[in-house]
Amino acid sequence: MSSSHPFVPFLTTLSSAAGAAILPHFRTGFDVENKKSGGFDPVTIADRAAETAMRAEINRAYPDHGILGEEHGSENLDAEHVWVLDPIDGTRAFISGLPTWGVLIGLKTGGKPAIGMMAQPYVGETYAGDGKSAWYEGPLGARTLATRPCAEIESAVLLTTAPEMFQGAEADAYQAIASRTRLNRYSSDCYGYAMVAAGQVDCVIETGLQAYDVVALIPIIEGAGGVITSWTGGSAADGGQVVASGDPRLHDQLLTILSRAAV
Amino acid sequence: MSSSHPFVPFLTTLSSAAGAAILPHFRTGFDVENKKSGGFDPVTIADRAAETAMRAEINRAYPDHGILGEEHGSENLDAEHVWVLDPIDGTRAFISGLPTWGVLIGLKTGGKPAIGMMAQPYVGETYAGDGKSAWYEGPLGARTLATRPCAEIESAVLLTTAPEMFQGAEADAYQAIASRTRLNRYSSDCYGYAMVAAGQVDCVIETGLQAYDVVALIPIIEGAGGVITSWTGGSAADGGQVVASGDPRLHDQLLTILSRAAV
Repeated sequence: MSSSHPFVPFLTTLSSAAGAAILPHFRTGFDVENKKSGGFDPVTIADRAAETAMRAEINRAYPDHGILGEEHGSENLDAEHVWVLDPIDGTRAFISGLPTWGVLIGLKTGGKPAIGMMAQPYVGETYAGDGKSAWYEGPLGARTLATRPCAEIESAVLLTTAPEMFQGAEADAYQAIASRTRLNRYSSDCYGYAMVAAGQVDCVIETGLQAYDVVALIPIIEGAGGVITSWTGGSAADGGQVVASGDPRLHDQLLTILSRAAV
Repeated sequence: MSSSHPFVPFLTTLSSAAGAAILPHFRTGFDVENKKSGGFDPVTIADRAAETAMRAEINRAYPDHGILGEEHGSENLDAEHVWVLDPIDGTRAFISGLPTWGVLIGLKTGGKPAIGMMAQPYVGETYAGDGKSAWYEGPLGARTLATRPCAEIESAVLLTTAPEMFQGAEADAYQAIASRTRLNRYSSDCYGYAMVAAGQVDCVIETGLQAYDVVALIPIIEGAGGVITSWTGGSAADGGQVVASGDPRLHDQLLTILSRAAV
């Protein structure tokens, strides 16, 4: 890792704790509960166990830090340092056995995303960043993450979780872009943002995100040289409509179209 | 591995050769050629190098065997044993940096799929079968593959590569099923079939496949207790319209709908 940020080593402490809690439940196939009675919203035992494990580590090491988590709510959100946790981003990928889910660990300092990590414990890889640099460790060794140039939509590879996530004006804006790109792929979840940072794809467009879906990713994308904002070009840190690009020129073109459907 | 089939150990020889040829080119980002001048059909240097490496192993060990490969054509197809190779199934996942592509290695004996393997060299995992049994080796250790029960469409998790792959009557049939399932996921490529065998999902529906996209998968699905056929219930070994299910009861229900759009 190439960061001097004091809390960066703790990212690995947290991701290791999460991975140890999750992996015994991956591909067992029978650990799915329903959080909402009406729709399909899978939450695995692993999800909750991993957040519990990470919260215990934070409370032990930094009892004055705040925590915002997907599964177990928030504590001490007025603190200078607030950890933002999504123990399994991509729960549908997880229950399908696919390796594109990830553990998202972000730290907001003074209200802004400071450092973040996406960890894939099954593959044994991590993507992390501090807003100024970003780095990977995994089966390919240790590497610096850097986005790639992509000057226009027609050259872009676009990822998103599913076309059905967009409705009405959002769907129109998404299709106006997706009909022009070189290649579209689905079902990427947090893995798609990691691939923007790695210079493998050019952009991710999503909507309906929560803060814990995106805070961890901002320092990675920005540290790799990319841009991640809301559809109006504002901060992505609260979730909602989010677009990430490896090349600022591409990002400007995407915002021109997406801003029509911004809420 | 739990098979006494004499050629099973050679599957690992081939997948190792393919992995060694592919991994130096994974996530380099700049090795994409265009096979067709009109459309987007990515073929990486890795794809060709891996098939060359596997062909060399086959020619050395079994010079009387035939070979059908995606990249370098066919030789000796009248032989009793014919290897069917797709060095990178899911080239679009590959160029996007996603870990859901795989090396497909099948063996047809007397014209019928006998053994097969799907290998994911980046993750370090293999899924293999001989039609009577199927097995996994990877980050979770060595495991037997077994499909899970799923008696009806409403309970099923369905995977496919992309909804756009279906046109006209095919799209109508696909939607008639996808609108009833519990969960749909995209961009699965060969990985989806491995997840049927692993009992993580219930079915995969695809069209426009080539023989080298599917021959390797048949002994894995069948060895794990599943069913894989054409949309009319015939052999899937020639590709085209393919449906795979973990539970024969689900398969029958899918065929009732898909057969309307069978060609």
